[in-house]
Amino acid sequence: MRIRRKKGTKEKIVLHDDLLVLEPEQMLGKWHEFFGNDYPIYLEVGTGFGQFIRGQAKKNPKINYIALEKIEEVLIKTIMTTKEEGITNLRFLWFNANQLELIFAENELDKIYLNFSDPWPKNKTAKRRLTHSNFLNKYQEILKPRAKVEFKTDNQLLFEFSLNEFSKEGWKMENICLDVGNRGPEDNIQTEYETKFSGLGMPIYRLEAINPK
Amino acid sequence: MRIRRKKGTKEKIVLHDDLLVLEPEQMLGKWHEFFGNDYPIYLEVGTGFGQFIRGQAKKNPKINYIALEKIEEVLIKTIMTTKEEGITNLRFLWFNANQLELIFAENELDKIYLNFSDPWPKNKTAKRRLTHSNFLNKYQEILKPRAKVEFKTDNQLLFEFSLNEFSKEGWKMENICLDVGNRGPEDNIQTEYETKFSGLGMPIYRLEAINPK
Repeated sequence: MRIRRKKGTKEKIVLHDDLLVLEPEQMLGKWHEFFGNDYPIYLEVGTGFGQFIRGQAKKNPKINYIALEKIEEVLIKTIMTTKEEGITNLRFLWFNANQLELIFAENELDKIYLNFSDPWPKNKTAKRRLTHSNFLNKYQEILKPRAKVEFKTDNQLLFEFSLNEFSKEGWKMENICLDVGNRGPEDNIQTEYETKFSGLGMPIYRLEAINPK
Repeated sequence: MRIRRKKGTKEKIVLHDDLLVLEPEQMLGKWHEFFGNDYPIYLEVGTGFGQFIRGQAKKNPKINYIALEKIEEVLIKTIMTTKEEGITNLRFLWFNANQLELIFAENELDKIYLNFSDPWPKNKTAKRRLTHSNFLNKYQEILKPRAKVEFKTDNQLLFEFSLNEFSKEGWKMENICLDVGNRGPEDNIQTEYETKFSGLGMPIYRLEAINPK
């Protein structure tokens, strides 16, 4: 996504500390305490403008959602929309996905969503893809046993790569779908990208992968 | 494939018993004896006109190939071509894939090829698809541990179904490819269908699945 960087956003975003968790490392192993309930905790890595995760949060008040986004200009808009919509079971992290293990303890999460992640198409940048085996190994740690990663993308190369990575690392997959527009789940909530690309008739790919631990 | 059925083909085909194994049940557990060597045995289920398996056989003289086809009008042509090409490490079975366990013993095979299998697109006929879990369980028996099923198709629905079935049954997959024409193996040997559909710019899907036993 092409984003116009704006001076002063960093200063502005920290004012939203009602929805933005400013020092997430402090929450390691304490997220249930933070939310004040025992509901499951679902994480979205790379939330963008948050259409997907806001939709989920509105639909499932008994699930706690955490959405991670590294680009502050995007995140601030998403936080504003979340406030306008009065959503209370969703918090945000301004954080890079490389260090998830610093903010979540073993077995702390019940689901991870990856939606339209950056495909990093060049081979030499494959390690940055959010479904690279290095990332899968982190997800395996912080997710509960048998908990799922749910992954959607419009990028065929990234999807192909991801099928191979999940399989190599021993994650069983289910509901693999090569055309979400025609055969996806009935309760599919679209991301911004998905709305755009589906509208153009481009295929959307999806899978669910089960933590092998 | 649309085939013109011809009277008398059944009578003609049995005359080719130099390449056609007429009573394959007799060979159960004795295929190495039959071939007179210890080379690996590769099976293609549904060989059609055999372009793929003849290509393999010519390229790999130290592998024994068995090709199974149930439609006799197709099979007789394939046998004739194989004779014309002087191929000696390929034999044919006029047999239905439902009863593979009657002709191959446990661990007798080193690889199974499924190429452009009938997609049986209606849900109620899903059990006839050659990658249905019922078939995978048979392949698991007759293949050696860690041996592979290699599968190619132009049918997106069948490929999607197959990804899910293999994963469900615990087969690890590798070299999953959603566009063989652009990213397939360098030594890819095309089937007749593949030549036709690739030429039309249609995507070909491919995967390799590893026997989980």
